[in-house]
Amino acid sequence: MNYDKIIEKLKNGEIKLYEVEKYSSSNKEAIDIRRTFIEEITRSKLDKIDDYTIDMESASKKNIENPIGAVQIPVGIAGPLKINGDYANDEFYIPLATSEGALVASVNRGCSTITEVGGVNTKIIDDKMTRAPVIKTKSVPEAIEIKKWFEEKFQQLKKIAESTTNHGKLLKIDPILIVGNYVYPRFVYSTGDSMGMNMVTIATEKILDMLLNEKDAHLIALSGNVCVDKKPSGINMIEGRGKTVSADVCIPREIVKKKLKTTATDIVEVNIAKNLLGSAVANSMGFNAHYANMIGALFLATGQDVAHISEGSLGITTAEDRNGDLYFSVNMPDLPIATIGGGTSLDTANECLNILGVTGSGNVKKFAEITIATVLAGELSLIGALATGHLAKAHKDLGRA
Amino acid sequence: MNYDKIIEKLKNGEIKLYEVEKYSSSNKEAIDIRRTFIEEITRSKLDKIDDYTIDMESASKKNIENPIGAVQIPVGIAGPLKINGDYANDEFYIPLATSEGALVASVNRGCSTITEVGGVNTKIIDDKMTRAPVIKTKSVPEAIEIKKWFEEKFQQLKKIAESTTNHGKLLKIDPILIVGNYVYPRFVYSTGDSMGMNMVTIATEKILDMLLNEKDAHLIALSGNVCVDKKPSGINMIEGRGKTVSADVCIPREIVKKKLKTTATDIVEVNIAKNLLGSAVANSMGFNAHYANMIGALFLATGQDVAHISEGSLGITTAEDRNGDLYFSVNMPDLPIATIGGGTSLDTANECLNILGVTGSGNVKKFAEITIATVLAGELSLIGALATGHLAKAHKDLGRA
Amino acid sequence: MNYDKIIEKLKNGEIKLYEVEKYSSSNKEAIDIRRTFIEEITRSKLDKIDDYTIDMESASKKNIENPIGAVQIPVGIAGPLKINGDYANDEFYIPLATSEGALVASVNRGCSTITEVGGVNTKIIDDKMTRAPVIKTKSVPEAIEIKKWFEEKFQQLKKIAESTTNHGKLLKIDPILIVGNYVYPRFVYSTGDSMGMNMVTIATEKILDMLLNEKDAHLIALSGNVCVDKKPSGINMIEGRGKTVSADVCIPREIVKKKLKTTATDIVEVNIAKNLLGSAVANSMGFNAHYANMIGALFLATGQDVAHISEGSLGITTAEDRNGDLYFSVNMPDLPIATIGGGTSLDTANECLNILGVTGSGNVKKFAEITIATVLAGELSLIGALATGHLAKAHKDLGRA
Amino acid sequence: MNYDKIIEKLKNGEIKLYEVEKYSSSNKEAIDIRRTFIEEITRSKLDKIDDYTIDMESASKKNIENPIGAVQIPVGIAGPLKINGDYANDEFYIPLATSEGALVASVNRGCSTITEVGGVNTKIIDDKMTRAPVIKTKSVPEAIEIKKWFEEKFQQLKKIAESTTNHGKLLKIDPILIVGNYVYPRFVYSTGDSMGMNMVTIATEKILDMLLNEKDAHLIALSGNVCVDKKPSGINMIEGRGKTVSADVCIPREIVKKKLKTTATDIVEVNIAKNLLGSAVANSMGFNAHYANMIGALFLATGQDVAHISEGSLGITTAEDRNGDLYFSVNMPDLPIATIGGGTSLDTANECLNILGVTGSGNVKKFAEITIATVLAGELSLIGALATGHLAKAHKDLGRA
Repeated sequence: MNYDKIIEKLKNGEIKLYEVEKYSSSNKEAIDIRRTFIEEITRSKLDKIDDYTIDMESASKKNIENPIGAVQIPVGIAGPLKINGDYANDEFYIPLATSEGALVASVNRGCSTITEVGGVNTKIIDDKMTRAPVIKTKSVPEAIEIKKWFEEKFQQLKKIAESTTNHGKLLKIDPILIVGNYVYPRFVYSTGDSMGMNMVTIATEKILDMLLNEKDAHLIALSGNVCVDKKPSGINMIEGRGKTVSADVCIPREIVKKKLKTTATDIVEVNIAKNLLGSAVANSMGFNAHYANMIGALFLATGQDVAHISEGSLGITTAEDRNGDLYFSVNMPDLPIATIGGGTSLDTANECLNILGVTGSGNVKKFAEITIATVLAGELSLIGALATGHLAKAHKDLGRA
Repeated sequence: MNYDKIIEKLKNGEIKLYEVEKYSSSNKEAIDIRRTFIEEITRSKLDKIDDYTIDMESASKKNIENPIGAVQIPVGIAGPLKINGDYANDEFYIPLATSEGALVASVNRGCSTITEVGGVNTKIIDDKMTRAPVIKTKSVPEAIEIKKWFEEKFQQLKKIAESTTNHGKLLKIDPILIVGNYVYPRFVYSTGDSMGMNMVTIATEKILDMLLNEKDAHLIALSGNVCVDKKPSGINMIEGRGKTVSADVCIPREIVKKKLKTTATDIVEVNIAKNLLGSAVANSMGFNAHYANMIGALFLATGQDVAHISEGSLGITTAEDRNGDLYFSVNMPDLPIATIGGGTSLDTANECLNILGVTGSGNVKKFAEITIATVLAGELSLIGALATGHLAKAHKDLGRA
Repeated sequence: MNYDKIIEKLKNGEIKLYEVEKYSSSNKEAIDIRRTFIEEITRSKLDKIDDYTIDMESASKKNIENPIGAVQIPVGIAGPLKINGDYANDEFYIPLATSEGALVASVNRGCSTITEVGGVNTKIIDDKMTRAPVIKTKSVPEAIEIKKWFEEKFQQLKKIAESTTNHGKLLKIDPILIVGNYVYPRFVYSTGDSMGMNMVTIATEKILDMLLNEKDAHLIALSGNVCVDKKPSGINMIEGRGKTVSADVCIPREIVKKKLKTTATDIVEVNIAKNLLGSAVANSMGFNAHYANMIGALFLATGQDVAHISEGSLGITTAEDRNGDLYFSVNMPDLPIATIGGGTSLDTANECLNILGVTGSGNVKKFAEITIATVLAGELSLIGALATGHLAKAHKDLGRA
Repeated sequence: MNYDKIIEKLKNGEIKLYEVEKYSSSNKEAIDIRRTFIEEITRSKLDKIDDYTIDMESASKKNIENPIGAVQIPVGIAGPLKINGDYANDEFYIPLATSEGALVASVNRGCSTITEVGGVNTKIIDDKMTRAPVIKTKSVPEAIEIKKWFEEKFQQLKKIAESTTNHGKLLKIDPILIVGNYVYPRFVYSTGDSMGMNMVTIATEKILDMLLNEKDAHLIALSGNVCVDKKPSGINMIEGRGKTVSADVCIPREIVKKKLKTTATDIVEVNIAKNLLGSAVANSMGFNAHYANMIGALFLATGQDVAHISEGSLGITTAEDRNGDLYFSVNMPDLPIATIGGGTSLDTANECLNILGVTGSGNVKKFAEITIATVLAGELSLIGALATGHLAKAHKDLGRA
């Protein structure tokens, strides 16, 4: 069918948006047709969306349906950032994709401070991905039976789960929460370098097949919100999800003064008044200033799932005055990231991962350490700016709206 | 200075990343130099990042520091989505930027269901932006004095705040929380079509200038985490922040069956077991399945601040079986969005806003209604998929990792 | 009917426990019969429960159904406690009813420290009681109409509410939360010296009568858990409920050393590590060490409703090192108490209120200030004990199990 | 010294309140002197507090300091309550100490409904007591070392802990949370029939002695608020503390109508609108109507620590319409109770435990099942009352203020 004809049929509803590929001679043409249709029907010009340069044929297979092109977000560089981690042990330049003026500059100031004092320490405390279905039984006693079934069959279930994946390992099923006649077993896996959501979903489904064969129970949903995926939650703060990471640094008094224009005392004061007392009284789960900013910009640059920013915003910042020197730490319990799969294969994402030296397999822990180091740089810089009172001014100068 | 020379000096540290513009003949050249430097020092090729087509000169002024180019994220279209709102009243095509396979298809299925039944109702319940500094006094009695000062001077403070802005209005200072000798006044503004963070920060700072002149108090930080910006929080769930929006739809029994392959009963069951009981027992603040996914994809497409996804993940989904028909609603207390300022002026973001007919001033409420309608489409679709048990299969087929 | 006959009929089920009064010649006899029945059927001796000396005839009318006697809890005295409040301005002896060895001694140590430094400052920040029904409509738009109805009719509704009570005043209806087709208006009253739950329930019911007459809406429950009564909640932390009270004290370095055997530095360290960071990472709503202990013992002594201890356990403790002197504050957002009504009229409760000089009307704010002062005394003492590391030892010595 | 002389010296401060025993000839005399002193100095009459009949000599050794007598709280009986548990399997009469009119009657109605349908099922899901100190190190890496130390030495530490107690067993140290340079290991014990706080504190202290000998770490506080004791918390909701218990019942349609004057549909509606949606939107941790009421009255009657009501108020109620029959469950993750130690040895508490047949060792699980069954009775009754709309009326009739 020719181009105009298809658009015609899209307009009168004979063809659906997702059927365009079927009638097109190429992926490129399908994208063009669909975009043209949108342009016509919404009377808009989409020249820049059309002006993509990434490989949309590949993306169409894995990342997007009904594509019309691509959006572009500027990438800036912060660094060098010296990291003394178990996996990341070098100076790094951090690609940050953002449209928020002042963010890259602010992170950069943090990097500069950290690098001047010899670098930030980073640590992976835990590493896992979870999936928790919800299963319905008839009563509390039967719910408890299901719980026991999972506990007693663990070794067998582990084998079944691991038969579905090359890299995933079922570490534990814990906790197994019961609410009346509902059971929420939390399956905890290690997932290698992928973020792992799909892997753990498939493995868990296989286990549930066996359960439903053996026991009189009903699967209500493969995810019962105890995972907890893409929502802030206490269970993820406590049990961890994705990577659980911490970073710290100690900054001599003179450097605090020279680079951050403030003192350890003032930074400690801001941290207590804002990140601890303020978050407590506002009933917030984020005892930090703005982890979400750094996570957001790094996620965007490297092809992570931005919906996980809701989890990445959790965490606690600490600050301590050590005789005028500043001890400062950031702690993220719930950081789901990947170096393979999902958006990481998009061309520009791949290039950003390359800048960090973490493309492909074997690199996710290194990437996690770079991430937490970047979070520390940005957090330190903002807390420093607040301590000197120049937040509004910085925004004014840098044009944030 | 010539190109190679600058790179040389970047390498030996004589020039900092942010100083490149100073030595370059153009914005374009500065970007090139910086990118080349990063390529050389990290031994990576950044061809695609280099291959941007948006106006980086403009972006460099407002959105990014130390730019090296841009990342690209595929945009797909879901729709048409019929919306019966107070501001959005039409059929819309929704641009979603994402790398998560299956998301656009899933939202699209929701759109199709909704449109078939005559559309989704949307409502703006509240609209505001907040800033809450933390102020330190010597004691509880003095903290209470500061609270009273804000209460008694409100009309005067309102004038001062509004002198700093064309569009912002100070609506109230409430609550004013006290923790020991600390005071957290929450300044609540209407901000027109910009997201408003910068506006409220500047207006609040002006008020604080007056406070510090008149009273013996100390400003610890312009943001005391009671705002609460970019963290999940109880206060935002209860008081609202950004747009507080709801949407609902009633779907006849046959359409539930035809489009979602399930029943109202089963959807209600999933909603109770997962979104209500599951989130409750996991101590989550998000009583929904995946608002963050839709918010994330729409934010990315339209140049919103992705760090606000942490706020957008809050909210409650309800479902009710009305004699076999399905009543379904989504409710977001905390949705900070804008049609002007920030990333909305990026070329591709602007085009996406254009697709929705919400570019520029006077359109933010329409945009908010489109957003909540899109959230409903995606939430309905996923809950429907869970109810039929085909989540893992959908992921498998569509290649999510 | 004679005594044995009634017991006989209780045993064979002809008479129910609550019908005993009907067949008895006196309140005393009914109590005796019921207790004897319980003794016989459970083969237990209830001599001490029988050995009550309070006026059970009066209690039977207002406080208890199916009475068999009374339990007794030891009362100890802590004090004197010097309070410099707006309502409580004197030295007080605090009656504490508890079975937890070491608690009175610990509070007493706090009192002694406070009194030595000239007393604790106390402040009532807010004072109110709330009731929030849940109302069902057909849709979000109708829910919003109900919200508007409450807002527009406020003055009229205020009159209606206040017609049902001598002391209650309807202060506001705020917030009015909407979740889909459900509406949760939070009615906020001042209630004088009673705790006010019954008063606000009756007043609110009257308003709802009018609503249901005028609008097409359905009252699901008179309490919709947004009140929030007898559960810990973010809304009560933020909006306050009952009395919102704070207290603080500044203790010179030498007194910290002499009385608490520690230093301001160590107390600040414990407060940050335990009450702030510890509670944050445990996802707790109580950023304090043990407010519930003092509230519990004072509630028991003075006839308060112990179920409200769940609300009284909320709150934040702060500590600051002021050049070696210790600044210390406690903050309770949600303290429902009364000097009239409920259990306050029980003989022993009345005597305990008498010890504090707060019996009857006009005294509830004074009582609230004494309560927060007592909380500070106990909190300071325990934090001090933790700072010196002798908690386990104190428990061992004092025989707590 | 004679009576008047001591009072004289109390008045002029020569003798402290806690020193009276030293100068008195008997425990009784000390109590009398102290009470007389309080009567004189506060010009109050304490006849009823004086009129105690419990063994205060024994109480003075274990339960109270500075005693002046006792308070009395009326005890009413609800029941019979038929329980089909693993430990409680019989009909029980429940002693409830309260001053809140209508509570016993309401619970009684629930008991009657439950017993008529053959009883309530009860289950102990978990049973443990926890203590989580906070330990300070110099940095994140050192904090992780401490975590590893606990993990690797577990078997050895278990022996050390268990050497301090006859009944306690160290089950696990999990989670071990890290926030910057702070470590919060959560020690989880089984504690037999005592509530166990003292036991676990002593055992944990012994382990910490070894840690501090071997490693360069500093104990900040024996309790770091990750336990979490006497505060509401996410970690206790998720991990459990004390007894984790559930109960459920299925009530045929006619009985729902006859006894509760309502329908399964209406009860389900109230449960969703109030206990689930209402609590969610109010950011509450208690997804129930009033567990705290039943817990409070039973705790008071049986000598439990009322401060633990803050933990007992957590939990989730579920309700389901099964073709007109009502399935109803209550779930408490965090119920710290005991049948020995603490206030259980007070004469009247002991008698109440006797009524239930749970005095002394070997009975705590039976007691836990009776407790959750009582909670179900009261919760069912109130939800039923709300569903029929007669809450305010019930309060009015029964005189609650």
